Amino acid sequence: MTTSVDLHTYLTARRERVEKALREVFPPAWGIPSTLRDAMDYSLLAGGKRLRPILVLAAAEAVQDDAERASDRAMPFACAVEMIHTYSLIHDDLPAMDNDDFRRGRPTNHKVYGDAMAILAGDGLLTHAFHVLASAAKGGVPAERVLAASEELAMFAGVFGMVGGQALDMEGEQGVTSLGQLESIHLHKTSDLIAFSVRAGGHASEAGDDQLRALERFGKNVGLAFQIQDDILDLTGTEEKLGKPVKSDERQEKVTYPFLIGLDESRKRVSSLTEEANEALLGAGLSDPRRLIEIAGSLLNRDH
Amino acid sequence: MTTSVDLHTYLTARRERVEKALREVFPPAWGIPSTLRDAMDYSLLAGGKRLRPILVLAAAEAVQDDAERASDRAMPFACAVEMIHTYSLIHDDLPAMDNDDFRRGRPTNHKVYGDAMAILAGDGLLTHAFHVLASAAKGGVPAERVLAASEELAMFAGVFGMVGGQALDMEGEQGVTSLGQLESIHLHKTSDLIAFSVRAGGHASEAGDDQLRALERFGKNVGLAFQIQDDILDLTGTEEKLGKPVKSDERQEKVTYPFLIGLDESRKRVSSLTEEANEALLGAGLSDPRRLIEIAGSLLNRDH
Repeated sequence: MTTSVDLHTYLTARRERVEKALREVFPPAWGIPSTLRDAMDYSLLAGGKRLRPILVLAAAEAVQDDAERASDRAMPFACAVEMIHTYSLIHDDLPAMDNDDFRRGRPTNHKVYGDAMAILAGDGLLTHAFHVLASAAKGGVPAERVLAASEELAMFAGVFGMVGGQALDMEGEQGVTSLGQLESIHLHKTSDLIAFSVRAGGHASEAGDDQLRALERFGKNVGLAFQIQDDILDLTGTEEKLGKPVKSDERQEKVTYPFLIGLDESRKRVSSLTEEANEALLGAGLSDPRRLIEIAGSLLNRDH
Repeated sequence: MTTSVDLHTYLTARRERVEKALREVFPPAWGIPSTLRDAMDYSLLAGGKRLRPILVLAAAEAVQDDAERASDRAMPFACAVEMIHTYSLIHDDLPAMDNDDFRRGRPTNHKVYGDAMAILAGDGLLTHAFHVLASAAKGGVPAERVLAASEELAMFAGVFGMVGGQALDMEGEQGVTSLGQLESIHLHKTSDLIAFSVRAGGHASEAGDDQLRALERFGKNVGLAFQIQDDILDLTGTEEKLGKPVKSDERQEKVTYPFLIGLDESRKRVSSLTEEANEALLGAGLSDPRRLIEIAGSLLNRDH
């Protein structure tokens, strides 16, 4: 499946709206120290697919007929997710962590601003994400829903979610041997934030519990498929397309899906997870799950 | 002013309740990776004065007659503040930041768990603070109040608050020359989180806007006095009492209040700020501001 013209138009339009909103998350009047502001903007406004915030908007639109209104209401959640994702990349790239010099074809944050400012930029983005998220209440999302989203963001991005997955990954460097271990790391490191993204969109559109559960199942499966595809692309992709060195997993002796079960099996797993993701959406009474299904499909055959 | 027996009893009782609550912020069933959990607990359960969480409880009790109920409702906010404070210490102590080896008489987090795990432990505590804070809704605090507290925590601890102050401090290492600059750093680095603490207590007891403003003014002044007293103690205190090396500011060539205006003037400033703090509470229609005033007084003459 390739990205249809229609989906391409949709993704471009949503990405542009996300970019615009991200440029406005720090009110200029509030006087953030300039180096800190520059360091945060350097990574937050570095482009990228904006997959997670687009999934927030697409999920909100899947629940509610009025797509414009749904994505407006969900935008603070979309920005918060991207801020969390960005902070995690900044901290992961630090010398003490993965020690990466390049990200999206540019020097990593600490290479430009130094380790101390990169740590602060990450802390700042992480903290301010909760401020931006809370502003959804001003856009008409009921306080209970905003609070639920805040609590869930802390869980899916925190010690039981993304941060926990990162810690598992570090512990695992002493030797991941089973697929179960690897899957647990990926589920937390990557899937949890994607699962949160679609749940958050659901909350913005006041989805019912069944719909939230269906969205979460979709997100977990898509997130795992996405991570396996990343492992595959690290082996088979080109540096030009990816904007980062290829075969870095091999060099760092990371245990990946292709390493454990081979390329073919890894590709099959991406397909079956994508199918499971889409199945989760059927029968959940969503107003229109088409975009979410299209996005999941487009991730299946991506080359970057 | 010295700590009265009565105040001592109060502080001990509240500290014990805070310690108990802090031991329960991570539900055991949720399966946090053990090294991460250990690293977070190492710093979170390291004792200390617990000034910020006690101020949360005391502010809640100042607004509401029923002290037991007030402090129960405010406890999630109290824990969240201490988690934020703890994460900031872990990250500040990192080699890339202040490079401190000891804190409260023990090796710092990264000396025990390594830099990478210390970064993650900080990220985990910071993120989970918002989860714990949100749980106040289950204790009967209205969702709107919990959401307001969450938004304020993100602001006072974030890029306009504590993280911003830290960045200002780093920029200032190239040369703070004026009292205004130094005060701005301290206000953000230290006062903001203390101002949040008393506001959060106010929210837990559904304080009115005037009361919240009075509590915030109290907190800002107490926070600044507290920081100046820290500068003074670094010069005049003993390593045994402080649990960390003295005169570290001098060695690190940090610009402090005593450096800029001398010891005597610094001490006068602590007194006048404490008076201003207490004045802020009068006329705000608080049910009983006595404990807050006593706590501010006890900070004035502390030796650690």
